[in-house]
Amino acid sequence: MNPYRIGLERDAANYAPLTPLTLLDWSAFTYPDHPSVIHGERRHTWGETYARCRRLGSALLRRGIGPGDTVAAMLPNVPAMYELHFGVAMAGAVLNTLNTRLDADTIAFMLKHAEAKVLFTDREFCATVAKALSALPAKPLVIDVDDPAFAGGEPLGEIEYETFLASGDGENVRAAPDDEWDAISLNYTSGTTGNPKGVVYHHRGAYLNAVGNALVWNMPRHAVYLWTLPMFHCNGWCFAWTTAAVAGTNVCLRKVEAAPVFDAIRRHRVTHYCGAPIVHNLLINAPADLRAGIEHTVHCLVAGAAPPAAVIEGMERMGFDLTHIYGLTETYGPAAVCAKRAAWESLELAQRAERNGRQGVRYPLEEGMCVMDPATMRPVPADGETMGEIMFRGNITMKGYLKNEQATREAFAGGWFHSGDLAVLQPDGYVKIKDRSKDVIISGGENVSSLEVEDALSRHPDVMVAAVVAMPDPKWGEVPCAFVELKEGAKTDAAEIIAFCRERLAHFKAPKAVVFGTLPKTSTGKIQKFVLREQAKGAQAIDT
Amino acid sequence: MNPYRIGLERDAANYAPLTPLTLLDWSAFTYPDHPSVIHGERRHTWGETYARCRRLGSALLRRGIGPGDTVAAMLPNVPAMYELHFGVAMAGAVLNTLNTRLDADTIAFMLKHAEAKVLFTDREFCATVAKALSALPAKPLVIDVDDPAFAGGEPLGEIEYETFLASGDGENVRAAPDDEWDAISLNYTSGTTGNPKGVVYHHRGAYLNAVGNALVWNMPRHAVYLWTLPMFHCNGWCFAWTTAAVAGTNVCLRKVEAAPVFDAIRRHRVTHYCGAPIVHNLLINAPADLRAGIEHTVHCLVAGAAPPAAVIEGMERMGFDLTHIYGLTETYGPAAVCAKRAAWESLELAQRAERNGRQGVRYPLEEGMCVMDPATMRPVPADGETMGEIMFRGNITMKGYLKNEQATREAFAGGWFHSGDLAVLQPDGYVKIKDRSKDVIISGGENVSSLEVEDALSRHPDVMVAAVVAMPDPKWGEVPCAFVELKEGAKTDAAEIIAFCRERLAHFKAPKAVVFGTLPKTSTGKIQKFVLREQAKGAQAIDT
Repeated sequence: MNPYRIGLERDAANYAPLTPLTLLDWSAFTYPDHPSVIHGERRHTWGETYARCRRLGSALLRRGIGPGDTVAAMLPNVPAMYELHFGVAMAGAVLNTLNTRLDADTIAFMLKHAEAKVLFTDREFCATVAKALSALPAKPLVIDVDDPAFAGGEPLGEIEYETFLASGDGENVRAAPDDEWDAISLNYTSGTTGNPKGVVYHHRGAYLNAVGNALVWNMPRHAVYLWTLPMFHCNGWCFAWTTAAVAGTNVCLRKVEAAPVFDAIRRHRVTHYCGAPIVHNLLINAPADLRAGIEHTVHCLVAGAAPPAAVIEGMERMGFDLTHIYGLTETYGPAAVCAKRAAWESLELAQRAERNGRQGVRYPLEEGMCVMDPATMRPVPADGETMGEIMFRGNITMKGYLKNEQATREAFAGGWFHSGDLAVLQPDGYVKIKDRSKDVIISGGENVSSLEVEDALSRHPDVMVAAVVAMPDPKWGEVPCAFVELKEGAKTDAAEIIAFCRERLAHFKAPKAVVFGTLPKTSTGKIQKFVLREQAKGAQAIDT
Repeated sequence: MNPYRIGLERDAANYAPLTPLTLLDWSAFTYPDHPSVIHGERRHTWGETYARCRRLGSALLRRGIGPGDTVAAMLPNVPAMYELHFGVAMAGAVLNTLNTRLDADTIAFMLKHAEAKVLFTDREFCATVAKALSALPAKPLVIDVDDPAFAGGEPLGEIEYETFLASGDGENVRAAPDDEWDAISLNYTSGTTGNPKGVVYHHRGAYLNAVGNALVWNMPRHAVYLWTLPMFHCNGWCFAWTTAAVAGTNVCLRKVEAAPVFDAIRRHRVTHYCGAPIVHNLLINAPADLRAGIEHTVHCLVAGAAPPAAVIEGMERMGFDLTHIYGLTETYGPAAVCAKRAAWESLELAQRAERNGRQGVRYPLEEGMCVMDPATMRPVPADGETMGEIMFRGNITMKGYLKNEQATREAFAGGWFHSGDLAVLQPDGYVKIKDRSKDVIISGGENVSSLEVEDALSRHPDVMVAAVVAMPDPKWGEVPCAFVELKEGAKTDAAEIIAFCRERLAHFKAPKAVVFGTLPKTSTGKIQKFVLREQAKGAQAIDT
């Protein structure tokens, strides 16, 4: 008989479902007059944001939206998008933020698969949305968010966002879900092959990653967060909820361009922002005068792809404090961090960049991360050599894939989430990705890590971005093919690039072909390797 | 049919019990060489602390200790005490830290009530412990922690801590409890009347308050935390676990005295410490030369009693950043914070001190705090006038009282934890305590808040500490009686003190008697008003 298990049950007094809704409630109650959201000249306070979210929740309830219903959004980073992160949950419903750069067919697939009852949309995406809607047998309620900051496009809906908000009285909304395991959001994977999968987040995980982000990043009360990262991407890596936990200020941004980013940093004293390497690259390569007048330290997270050494070095030269995090849609965005160690500070820049560019260790609020052989489910030795698959387990691993038990079971085989990323474990316990399992190039029986080749390419002074994929080769089976985007005014050629790589890599790892041009990217800055793989089939190998 | 509830169940991959054990694991894995615990010349790293906790857990397991078993500790703030906060849970058992200033009878009561199987003790407390043990029908396994920093006393146990540790191999310990609702620790209330109650904490709450502390206090990675607060008090307000969450450094301290505190702050660059007002008072009133050479900002939390304005002002003059938090044993220590608002910074010092001295708002990770009429369970208006009882609900409210279902039910009546503290809600939503319900003085039918009178007394330049209780009065029923501890060299008398109060308070609120001398205090610096109430019965009223 365990006396600690008798007469000590859950009660309304001592148990509450974990939910981001209590974080908003806290900020609004504690700092009602502090700025919550800034968009151009528009400003809201936490008191106002809370009231607006409640009105949104009650307006949805009046339209019959409730638990199990999906509310979709095709929106840039505007105040309405932020409010949807709380207002939809206040109606008990599930928020599905759509990647605004997807095509109409994919959007139609998602709206249909999620059975979206409502769609919030922006004039900018009217062509895609109109086409997607026309493909749906049952139309959702379409609500236009009419942002004066964008000129052009057509409204498509039956009601405008502010009018819709006014139809709610803010009453009878939920302060919490029935169960912390209930869904709060739905995020489709980018789905490079096959149909996208709908990743379901629950309140518990959203709450824990929101708080975990603040802990990992030492994010102080009233941090000023610039929305360079799309909120549609894993709910802005859960930062949509983190900013409420720290009563921060959300600075909205419709489009990432160097001048408006630096202007926002200067004007609003932005302290924190996130983005894929390409976002940081944009700032590094911008004219130095755009940065004039920024004296305070700006903290940045980079993820979405391993940051090349050039990005880490470039950020350091700008005086920005960059931290590398890693995760997937299935892990609520970031679930690992390349936690900096004091000893690295005295290293040479290149070595420091190498250390800081790794995927690192688990988030303190994710319970497990390791590199395992998926066949045996045994961890690889920490030798920096043996490849395995990165696996996660814990509270910031998804609830599962919507209406896809088979895929969920496969992803969770053996009680770990299989990331699909191939990595080694270094002697200090930090994980370093070698490749996506499908991106490995097998040349004459040898594995070539496309990342390793890309890293060599990115060190070339003329290279802005580079990607490497396999191209078919009659002799070796596959050989590396490089796609390169050059810096403005740069002059080089394929032979020179290949020679540069051969100085740094084993010959069989150096590209056999180089294609110059703009690289196809996803909305989050990830290079679309499946497009390149098609192109590589027709590329010309250079016989050197 | 809610599609978000189908095929999306809990799995080893996506659910883990919340527990502080994962925080230690994180710090040890990520920063194995970073200092975890410093005690005099002794230093451990996080890697060592983790290994030692594992050995402790396995040594307990070998002795047959497991789930439902209580492991007690009568220890000052030494490394072993810190290790018990993890090692005991690694055996699945429950840690009961005993207040080292209690008498033998009370300690015996606790050991018996908790059915302690093991007791870790320190030579300093051998007299009390020996007497307590002699009163027990069944003796626990007694383990001595032989701290060379203390001379004197006798070992009482059958084995010394380091030898005990060496008997464990660190294997087969738990990484997590079976259920996050399982108990992690037991903390007895100070019990001013009747027997102490055993407050049970679970892993979920301990974890959330550990993280909540870091969030509330903007506690950065590698904070250096000085143990001025006894770890036996609510597990150091859960900071025993917080320091693992931020991979901080624990600086141990056996005894709180001004010189060693300032020495530790200077030597180890302490950034954070906690304590009752008396701890801060000690530092404020210490000779200024003790503070020489401390240039960095030290962040302090004060709780255990509302800090008098003089403490808030004094800390500010020293350049220490003080935040007031509030809570009870039943809320894992702190569950409310007087969150500072930017607008207060421009106020006069006295007004700023008044704002900062309130109990404030809920912790972001506690879900509810309000002031209610306990008869109707309706919140009082935010008028700063209407008194009610402070109530809490949420995840950092205790699991309940051990073997006392009746008391648990009463404490949780109406789905809220009843704090017993009487307060008003001010117009800005911040809670301000007026009194413990049993400390209110009813004079001629009027309620007199003892805190209000104490605050007036503490403004007198000669007063070090003051406490006010009711004394019987034939005419008024009760009148306020003041107990005053004067500063060194101070010269004043009762009549002058009373006149001072009358300038600041309604006449009926001013003390009718003043008794000078050292005040009886609990180990946590709380003044023992029940002792004073007895003494007040014989006090002499001054007819003015």
